[in-house]
Formats: sequence, structure tokens, C-alpha cells
Amino acid sequence: MINKLCEKIKKLGAPVVAGLDPMLSYVPEHILKRSFEEYGETLKGAADAIWQFNKGIVDSVCDLIPAVKPQIAMYEQFGVEGMEAYKKTVDYCHEKDLIVIGDVKRGDIGSTSAAYATGHLGRVQVGNTVQKVFDEDFATVNPYLGTDGIKPFVDVCKEEKKGIFILVKTSNPSSGEFQDRLMDGRPLYEWVGEKVAQWGEACMGDSYSYVGAVVGATYPEMGKVLRKVMPKSFILVPGYGAQGGKAADLVPYFNEDGLGAIVNSSRGIIAAYKKEPYAKFGAENFGEASRQAVLDMIADINGALQAHI
Amino acid sequence: MINKLCEKIKKLGAPVVAGLDPMLSYVPEHILKRSFEEYGETLKGAADAIWQFNKGIVDSVCDLIPAVKPQIAMYEQFGVEGMEAYKKTVDYCHEKDLIVIGDVKRGDIGSTSAAYATGHLGRVQVGNTVQKVFDEDFATVNPYLGTDGIKPFVDVCKEEKKGIFILVKTSNPSSGEFQDRLMDGRPLYEWVGEKVAQWGEACMGDSYSYVGAVVGATYPEMGKVLRKVMPKSFILVPGYGAQGGKAADLVPYFNEDGLGAIVNSSRGIIAAYKKEPYAKFGAENFGEASRQAVLDMIADINGALQAHI
Repeated sequence: MINKLCEKIKKLGAPVVAGLDPMLSYVPEHILKRSFEEYGETLKGAADAIWQFNKGIVDSVCDLIPAVKPQIAMYEQFGVEGMEAYKKTVDYCHEKDLIVIGDVKRGDIGSTSAAYATGHLGRVQVGNTVQKVFDEDFATVNPYLGTDGIKPFVDVCKEEKKGIFILVKTSNPSSGEFQDRLMDGRPLYEWVGEKVAQWGEACMGDSYSYVGAVVGATYPEMGKVLRKVMPKSFILVPGYGAQGGKAADLVPYFNEDGLGAIVNSSRGIIAAYKKEPYAKFGAENFGEASRQAVLDMIADINGALQAHI
Repeated sequence: MINKLCEKIKKLGAPVVAGLDPMLSYVPEHILKRSFEEYGETLKGAADAIWQFNKGIVDSVCDLIPAVKPQIAMYEQFGVEGMEAYKKTVDYCHEKDLIVIGDVKRGDIGSTSAAYATGHLGRVQVGNTVQKVFDEDFATVNPYLGTDGIKPFVDVCKEEKKGIFILVKTSNPSSGEFQDRLMDGRPLYEWVGEKVAQWGEACMGDSYSYVGAVVGATYPEMGKVLRKVMPKSFILVPGYGAQGGKAADLVPYFNEDGLGAIVNSSRGIIAAYKKEPYAKFGAENFGEASRQAVLDMIADINGALQAHI
């Protein structure tokens, strides 16, 4: 799957992933109205609304980008019905040949991490059958529990040729509270990055490992260091746009081959119609607003990468 | 809810929580057979089997213990159907007046953590309505992202009078990889513990904070230190029994009031019928085996606590 990701990025010229994090407040009124009319103001109504919204976005951007990243919390908050919308979204994105990065940030002790890995990336045994479950292509994973928590994911990745992105340095303002603390003169995120590189050695694709890392766009100096610490790990970069990360700052997240990083934008793409300069499309045409936002984001990032060459 | 937890522990004389982590391999043959006959060897069949199994366990132990801790990964691995079994389990435990600790280990940046907090502990707004979703009483939370990731949970806890247990020192063998690394002469878990105490100051119950901690039974020396670092935080202690933690080692996790910790056993309780000395009950009577295992665990822990007085 990491090979497919590299190929798609090269083919499309777009190291960009659209974050499908559908807050209800992003969903245009006409969709909300239709879903609530059909299912009432219920969890099912909310789940239907975010699913219809996602479908509109995916239809509008699927030929431009290699991947999407649904944030499962935005579905989980609507309970079982929300999880159904999550699963429908994953399946629909696959139909459209998009790579799906499940932003699930799971992580637990061994047997429990194995259950998460099975449910999201692998196949679960039921009686004499084995079945795919959520079936994302990549998942994000939390490293706080160490190797025990990561290995079950790596095992499933090897089997299924899928991948993970491990949280190394997150994009949020307080990420430094623990992640930046020095241990033997180096910050925790560097130690985690070093482990990511080690864990990744055992499962290499053609140029990059199945084991990648999450490094926020909001900390470019650290991104630069981490690029060197984990030369074979793809970096998933959240925090571009709405959170403040700028294209020029992202150049050091990439390798010389022009690969090695994929930049996420969520709000900036899916809620584009709500903000200048895309408000002119109107809520009815939210998909076209998202499409234009994606085109602008690709141009912005490629511009920065080319300026650097 | 932390007050209710303290009261129930005192009333029952049982600082014990049963971990409802139903692997399919724990489910007795007669239940599996019935569920597969009804729903086939499908995710729905698996989900039905774990739900029926849980019901049997809960019926057998609900008068003995204050709380249960379903591990959501064991449900999530069966997809949407598994999540439905999780929700049914939470609701059924509430019917039986058990406190439910959702072992979800969620944690993300601000708005995303808010969605998790809403979905698990709070109420979600849908149109003009607000609705409870998974509605556990406590949730476990991962601290790697710092205050941003925790505060949304604390806010919901204040509103709903619910609680969280933050991972401080986990029970697994590799937990030390990052958690034990020294920063300014003190291990990471102590720094996290100190933060737990701070986060908890803002939302105190009568004697303990709504913000508790997870500290594994397998590291008693660290438990002793952490008890002092977070005097007002309840400690959820996994790792007793199957993972190797012994009752005598757990005494320092408790405060002088005999409270302050609640010890979890999962396999040791729910799969008791599979092992000596409970195998004599037989698979048909798995609930009775679990009941006896709970009685023995309560006696074991209380014995250790009393020997200390």
C-alpha cells in the first residue's frame, strides 16, 4: 500500500490528503434538512447527514488526490450509527480508488492492540471464516505503550501489505508538554522517531517503509530533524491551513525524491464553502468549493517544493 | 460518579472491576453455536455471541462488584455490529447498577478529543436535540498529546459528573520504553502523574478527583511513588492475575482510607471456567465460575489490605 501511495502521489502530482472530519456544523443546510426529514434529529439522522456530505466531497475531489483521512472521532460521537457512516465512507472511498488513512489513533497492550489492528487493517476470524472489518489501508497509532502496542499493527501490516502512521510530534499547541521533554539531551519525539525507523526496517516497500509517522505542520524545525531521523518513513503531516502550517515550511518534510510526506487538510477542504475565497460557490455547491480548495492546496505545496529545487 | 464509585467500593468491600474483554476464544461453545445458528459465522454472529457471553457474566457478578470495564477493542474488531454489542453491554450494566469504565484509550487534539469525550461521556447535539451516545461513566484516555487532548474530557466530566483514567504507567512489558525514560532526573510517568494531579484539581468529588490514572499492577514500586504524586487521583490498576500482578504488591496503590485504587481482572474473571481451579464448573456454568473467581479475587485483595493494617 505504501508503494501504491507513492505511485499515486507521483501520478497525480499531489502529496495531499483530504481529512474527512465532518462536524455537523460543516454540513450544508440542505443536506441536514433532508437527513433530518428522513430520520429525524437522531443519531441516525446525523450519521446520514455526514455520510451524504462526505459523498459530495469525495465525488468532487477523488480524481485529484491519492488519499483521504477520515477522523473516526467525528463518526464515533454519533455512536453505532456514526460508525456505520464511517464504514460506508471507507468503502465508498475505495470504490473511487482512494487510499484510506483511518485516523483512529489507537494503541494498547499487546492482545488489545492486536484486536484494533485486526479490526482496522486485518481480518477477524469468526468460526471457520475470516472477514475484513473496517478495512482502511493505513491507520494512525499512538506510541505511548511502546513496542508491545506497535508490533501487532506491524504484524498485520506485513500480512496485508498495509501501513501505519505513528504519532511522533503532533500538531496541537500543547504537544510539547511531554513530546518535547529532553531525555539524555534529546526530546521524546526524537526517541519515538528513532523507534519508528527501527520498527519500520522490518517491513519495507520499494522505497519507503509500511511504518510511517505523524509530524505536525506547525513544528517545521522539528519536522526537519525528524525527516533525517526516519529517512525511510513516510510522514503524514496534519496542521496545514486552518491550524496554521504553511507550504514553504513543509519543504523539509520531503525527501530529495519529492516524496516522503503527505500533507493533510481537513476543515480547509471540506468546509471550504464557508470561507473566503470559496464562499462564492455557495452551500449548494460545497463540493466544487472543496475541489477548488484542493486544487489551490496542491498548487501551493507544489509551488513551495519547486521553489526549493 | 467518583463519589458513587467510592460508596460502592465501601459498601461491597470490593475494590475490584471485572474487565469485559470478550475474545471469541473465551466464549463457551454452546453460546457460539446458538449465535452462529441464528446469524451465521458473520460479524453479527460474533457480536451476538460476545453479547450473550457478557450478559451471563454480568448476571453472575453484578451484586459483588462496583464496576465493569469493557475493552472497546474487543468489540470494535467486529465492526459496526461489535460496537452495537458494546453499547448493549454498557446499557445492560447500567440496568444492573454497575459503574461502567469504557476502556477506550482515546486521545487526540482539541476538537477531536472533544468529539470522543462527547461520544463516550457526554451528549451530542443533533439539530435542536442533545443525546447521550455510548454513555459510559468513565473512560480511559491517552496523555501523549498533552493538555489539549485532556481538557475536552475534563470539561465533559465536570458537566456530566463523570470521570476519566489517564494512562500513566501501563502494565505491559514494554511500557518502560518511553514511560520510564528520565527527564530532568524523573521518569516520564512521574511527569504525567504530576499533570494528572494538576488536571484533577479543577474537578474534585468529595475525596477523590474526577481525573484518575491507570497504573499497572505489574510495576508496584512505581505504583507506590505514583500514589504519592497523585494523592487525590483514583488509580485504575490493570495487570492483576493473568498478567502477573499479585495482591500483596497492590497495597501501596491504596490510600490510608482503604480507597484510592480499583483493581481490574479480565481473563481471570471472564474466562475463569477455562482454568483451574474453576474448570470444575464446566463451560455451561461459566457464569458461576466467574462468580467464584470474583469472590476469590475480592478475598485475595482484602486479605492483602488487612494484613497491611
